[in-house]
Amino acid sequence: MTELAKTIAREFGTPAVAIDLHRVERNIARLQALCDRAGVKNRPHIKTHKSPALATMQREAGAQGITCQKLGEAEVMADAGFDDILVSYNVLGDEKTERIARLMRKTHLTLCADNPTVVAGYARAAKISGVPLDVMVECDTGRKRAGVETPREAVALARAIAATPGLVFAGFLLYPPETAVAETQRFLDQALAGLRESGMAPRIISSGGTPNLVNLGKIAGVTEHRAGTSIFNDRMQLACGSATLDDCALQVIATVVSRAGSDRGILDAGSKTLTSDTGGGLDGHGLILEHPQARIAKFAEEHGFLDLSACNDRPAVGDVVRIVPNHVCVVVNMVDRLIATRGEAIVGEIPVAARGKIS
Amino acid sequence: MTELAKTIAREFGTPAVAIDLHRVERNIARLQALCDRAGVKNRPHIKTHKSPALATMQREAGAQGITCQKLGEAEVMADAGFDDILVSYNVLGDEKTERIARLMRKTHLTLCADNPTVVAGYARAAKISGVPLDVMVECDTGRKRAGVETPREAVALARAIAATPGLVFAGFLLYPPETAVAETQRFLDQALAGLRESGMAPRIISSGGTPNLVNLGKIAGVTEHRAGTSIFNDRMQLACGSATLDDCALQVIATVVSRAGSDRGILDAGSKTLTSDTGGGLDGHGLILEHPQARIAKFAEEHGFLDLSACNDRPAVGDVVRIVPNHVCVVVNMVDRLIATRGEAIVGEIPVAARGKIS
Repeated sequence: MTELAKTIAREFGTPAVAIDLHRVERNIARLQALCDRAGVKNRPHIKTHKSPALATMQREAGAQGITCQKLGEAEVMADAGFDDILVSYNVLGDEKTERIARLMRKTHLTLCADNPTVVAGYARAAKISGVPLDVMVECDTGRKRAGVETPREAVALARAIAATPGLVFAGFLLYPPETAVAETQRFLDQALAGLRESGMAPRIISSGGTPNLVNLGKIAGVTEHRAGTSIFNDRMQLACGSATLDDCALQVIATVVSRAGSDRGILDAGSKTLTSDTGGGLDGHGLILEHPQARIAKFAEEHGFLDLSACNDRPAVGDVVRIVPNHVCVVVNMVDRLIATRGEAIVGEIPVAARGKIS
Repeated sequence: MTELAKTIAREFGTPAVAIDLHRVERNIARLQALCDRAGVKNRPHIKTHKSPALATMQREAGAQGITCQKLGEAEVMADAGFDDILVSYNVLGDEKTERIARLMRKTHLTLCADNPTVVAGYARAAKISGVPLDVMVECDTGRKRAGVETPREAVALARAIAATPGLVFAGFLLYPPETAVAETQRFLDQALAGLRESGMAPRIISSGGTPNLVNLGKIAGVTEHRAGTSIFNDRMQLACGSATLDDCALQVIATVVSRAGSDRGILDAGSKTLTSDTGGGLDGHGLILEHPQARIAKFAEEHGFLDLSACNDRPAVGDVVRIVPNHVCVVVNMVDRLIATRGEAIVGEIPVAARGKIS
């Protein structure tokens, strides 16, 4: 265990979630450089850090606008002064319509839709606010999540948006599978051709995803990219090759609190800290830097079950360890603050201001 | 969808987490009656609801003391006036030693340990506080989580606690596998015999777990029971037969926001609301009451992926649905408030005061 981890444990108790600002800054700069080189705007996704302070660092490095996944995140960011916010999600429901209208008075908001019901709600919000609302069409090029499935549907929805009083068709929102560059290009080309036939043009074509950074610049027409995880990175990004261990800026600091059997132990970080997210099917629930052969085999809510059978050097009760979690975005969402470090020093705490903004 | 669910969606937005107070009260009364009938004290585990208001309802129904899983939960409950708190966890680290000492001045605290390192920390806390500290020995009778593995170790640790200035040996903490009644009895009998040889006697023998309520009264010597989940119940409790659907008091209210394919859809509740907890290997991530044949197949952070291929009646975009989650304890921990309902009326909001108290 490092002296810094021990200091964090002594000052804050464990488990605690810490970020290395030097690595954060380097990750922010790298993302900006990748976007600059590809000639696309950088619109980072703040769902990863949920922090106006970190979003400000991204903006100062060159980001143009930010992305949020829920309206509650956008509200926090608008209150912090962010004036160009994309919510990359179908926002739906009467309560949200009112909130959209209020938010439109505070920031320039861009929303997306993949169906007419969501568009109808946006039209009501625009009417309430008295301000035109930018709406993108979410397109699914293979992920089978949200998004219209065909270029024809994309063009039809774009036309419907453009024909709706109060709404402005803003462009296409993509979240392509990393392996679907060609399919995405084909979809986009057909959708753009359809738009041209209608005399329309998109202002934004937005792509996204940290693993998709390898594809930056490969899809012609894309104007901006939304990457979230790259600010911290995690075991998922290690697994897909989009980050090295040296790029992982976030660690969960935990203590070994039990060693009741020789092949096993218990960490004081369970599913209420590290979450049950498998990172898309990774083996185990995190990488312990001090004991990379230890396996976080399963969780109770506050217990991390350690399988130490493959370890030569086994931790003792009281040992403080550093864990790279499977998926940083869900771990950050479990805590109210991140402990900020630089080199071997603790330099402050960063509130996770949009934590738990699920709606 | 019910009118109530629609009202919740309209007033609070979705996703939202709602509890039915009538069912909560019935669940609280049932647990108390089961404990009364078995002649054991009811010490409910508040990690499920993390709410002083709900713990107060449990106390008023007859609970004697409460259980917490982390010191942070105990601090919230002590500040709310609870004066008999058991933390069923190895609490370890210098920062926690100081907090234990402060907490001892506010409430009667009982802690547990399965190793000498943890006991040594408790001794320092007792010394700082100047008050004797009750410490139980956690015993593992088959779960392979925390707890000493043999009666001999249990007695040795009990003697070590009793011999430590400032500490009082308070008894044995059990969390038996539901199928291990005989093994647990054998362990306990041997440990008690060992204590007698040392001229010692336990004040408390504590058992726990909602699925273990079927075993209440079956382990001779047990003086109290710690059940958490039974206040709300969930899909895990349905699966193991410890609750019926009518006993499930907590629902996640969500909206179908996308239906981009005929066999699939998207809920606005993903892993940041329902969590990735599989409930010990259940199929899917929750039971949708309106569409029990729909499968919540996987999650993104804010997307619940619906597989509708087995549904005759498929939800439309905008439909509000009620979901019984796999595991209520982790879902409650995702939100700052529970919406309280009674019959068809919304009657208030209950803060999840100890949410996110991971340390």
